[in-house]
Amino acid sequence: MASQPEAEHPKKAFGWAARDTFGVLSPFKFSRRETGEKDVAFKVLYCGICHSDLHMVKNEWGNSIYPIVPGHEVAGEVTEVGSKVKNFKVGDRVGVGCMVGSCHSCQSCADNLENYCSKMILTYSAKNVDGTITYGGYSDTMVSDEQFVIRIPDALPLEAAAPLLCAGITVFSPLKYFGLDKPGLHLGVVGLGGLGHMAVKFAKAFGANVTVISTSPNKKKEAVEHLKADSFVVSRENDQMQAVMGTFDGIIDTVSALHPLTPLLGLLKNHGKLVMVGAPDKPLELPAFSLIGGRKIIGGSMIGGIKETQEMIDFSAKHNVKPEIEIIPVDYVNTAMERLLKADVKYRFVIDIGNTLKASS
Amino acid sequence: MASQPEAEHPKKAFGWAARDTFGVLSPFKFSRRETGEKDVAFKVLYCGICHSDLHMVKNEWGNSIYPIVPGHEVAGEVTEVGSKVKNFKVGDRVGVGCMVGSCHSCQSCADNLENYCSKMILTYSAKNVDGTITYGGYSDTMVSDEQFVIRIPDALPLEAAAPLLCAGITVFSPLKYFGLDKPGLHLGVVGLGGLGHMAVKFAKAFGANVTVISTSPNKKKEAVEHLKADSFVVSRENDQMQAVMGTFDGIIDTVSALHPLTPLLGLLKNHGKLVMVGAPDKPLELPAFSLIGGRKIIGGSMIGGIKETQEMIDFSAKHNVKPEIEIIPVDYVNTAMERLLKADVKYRFVIDIGNTLKASS
Repeated sequence: MASQPEAEHPKKAFGWAARDTFGVLSPFKFSRRETGEKDVAFKVLYCGICHSDLHMVKNEWGNSIYPIVPGHEVAGEVTEVGSKVKNFKVGDRVGVGCMVGSCHSCQSCADNLENYCSKMILTYSAKNVDGTITYGGYSDTMVSDEQFVIRIPDALPLEAAAPLLCAGITVFSPLKYFGLDKPGLHLGVVGLGGLGHMAVKFAKAFGANVTVISTSPNKKKEAVEHLKADSFVVSRENDQMQAVMGTFDGIIDTVSALHPLTPLLGLLKNHGKLVMVGAPDKPLELPAFSLIGGRKIIGGSMIGGIKETQEMIDFSAKHNVKPEIEIIPVDYVNTAMERLLKADVKYRFVIDIGNTLKASS
Repeated sequence: MASQPEAEHPKKAFGWAARDTFGVLSPFKFSRRETGEKDVAFKVLYCGICHSDLHMVKNEWGNSIYPIVPGHEVAGEVTEVGSKVKNFKVGDRVGVGCMVGSCHSCQSCADNLENYCSKMILTYSAKNVDGTITYGGYSDTMVSDEQFVIRIPDALPLEAAAPLLCAGITVFSPLKYFGLDKPGLHLGVVGLGGLGHMAVKFAKAFGANVTVISTSPNKKKEAVEHLKADSFVVSRENDQMQAVMGTFDGIIDTVSALHPLTPLLGLLKNHGKLVMVGAPDKPLELPAFSLIGGRKIIGGSMIGGIKETQEMIDFSAKHNVKPEIEIIPVDYVNTAMERLLKADVKYRFVIDIGNTLKASS
């Protein structure tokens, strides 16, 4: 018999949850497990709103388990550690991203790529090893195996660290893996949302010449003046696209709507790389000649492993790479979701959990 | 004023040409240039029939220039060398593949990747630097800048060397570039024609465990017993495909007909690579999730550079990698083309030019 969320674990917890496919969030009482010997428990202070939270609360990917407490860009302060925890102590500044568990025995886990482990456990709306459902960071507390806890350097504000744990690592990891982290490369970023704006920032930090490629001419000023992209191309303007054909070493494509790949492949130099991190739900059209003629590749990438996430956070602290955020109170979350659907945010909502989440009883 | 093929150069030449989009080949008198100071002239002894010859003689890619003397898998014996030729002498065993020229000043040329030079000159039906049209190896003689001439080791029969110069390098190059040349990898080969059977042989020579993936169950015996593939999977048999899901490090896809990519991407391990060397003329359907979920890539590759072609030929001689060929007289060429269209050849036709091409006057 499945137990009630409020009673299944010994520790009381409180957050905001979606109860059904309407996806409307409201206050929700549940519970967290005792801090196990390898666990880190922490008080949540900030949680980013990822676009995937929007898909999940409405069950748009078909794998949602209700009630859902979303949130996988979670930052806070350690309140308790288990007896065998080695790397964290009470008071430490920490975060949790998209995962809270993996099998620890497959090749992906051995390679520090838990994100590609087939038994990886998502931070929310997933079945944990004890059979209970995971709840995310739109909540007052978290508890996680220390292997999935990221240390946040003092130089990085917690509210800035939160979105790095998903949006940041999702673009940082492919830039590294596909060799697009070398100074002097010409990199393109398609789409200027939560992921895209971080791709611009990391690419600049790596020393790239960065061009934002967008359907919206009105994003130019923002991209160039504020985010410090080197140039801007309107993808619907044929002459602008023609002018930069064959000039890109790599392109990070963050767009999750259906869009043509041929023009983007044409922008690449020979041996160039188009990396998709946004996933349109319908197949894209791939003309094989566009790859063959210049030995180009299309790759995909999904978040990043824990070791690399720590490297990304440390890199961000060192190079002052921070997301652009709009801090909101938790009771604004449904409005934020509506605005996110309209891409009306620059560039990430972060919920101020610490100051605004109050248990109603 | 364009001069006539027979008169535009000083040296008489003779071959078989297609005159129009019917693509029927017949005897053809033309001419070759004098052997320039950096040129190597040679007597053609064997020429392979590539599937692209079939497309070209019928202008199926829209870029054919008639009359066409096809043939870019050409092997023979040197008859004359220019005064500045360094690496070849009369009597040497040599070959020419898909290219006879490039710009020598771009990055691709500097990187020994003339095959990706935007000014690369194809061996036939292309405009040469002097404005005349290139004629291929279905002919008695060839002349080429020595930079595009390959030395054929004594251990390799000329008739076996010929198909290596296109079919061989086309699969050898991506196996190397994409890191699929390491012993112990599990490699798939899709399609068992001229390219596919060479992919099996090179993959085996590199020490891979090779699985042929085909729509035709009746190719199994041949693939396993004769070509020494380790296993065989019928792509239309769901249970066979399911049994090998997620087990391939890389797949070389040689099929130029439209076909689904999703099942092939599913066969790859995480971080696996699907490389296309056959080019369907219509776009393929690419589901982005299939790439993102396992950080997979789809790449393309087109023949190979001259330096690498020489390495491939030397490797083939050393490891006894030879194509399976059916040697035909030149007057069988139209029948061979018809059989090629029906995939009725194991696995490459090679024209015995030396013994069967006789000038009619």
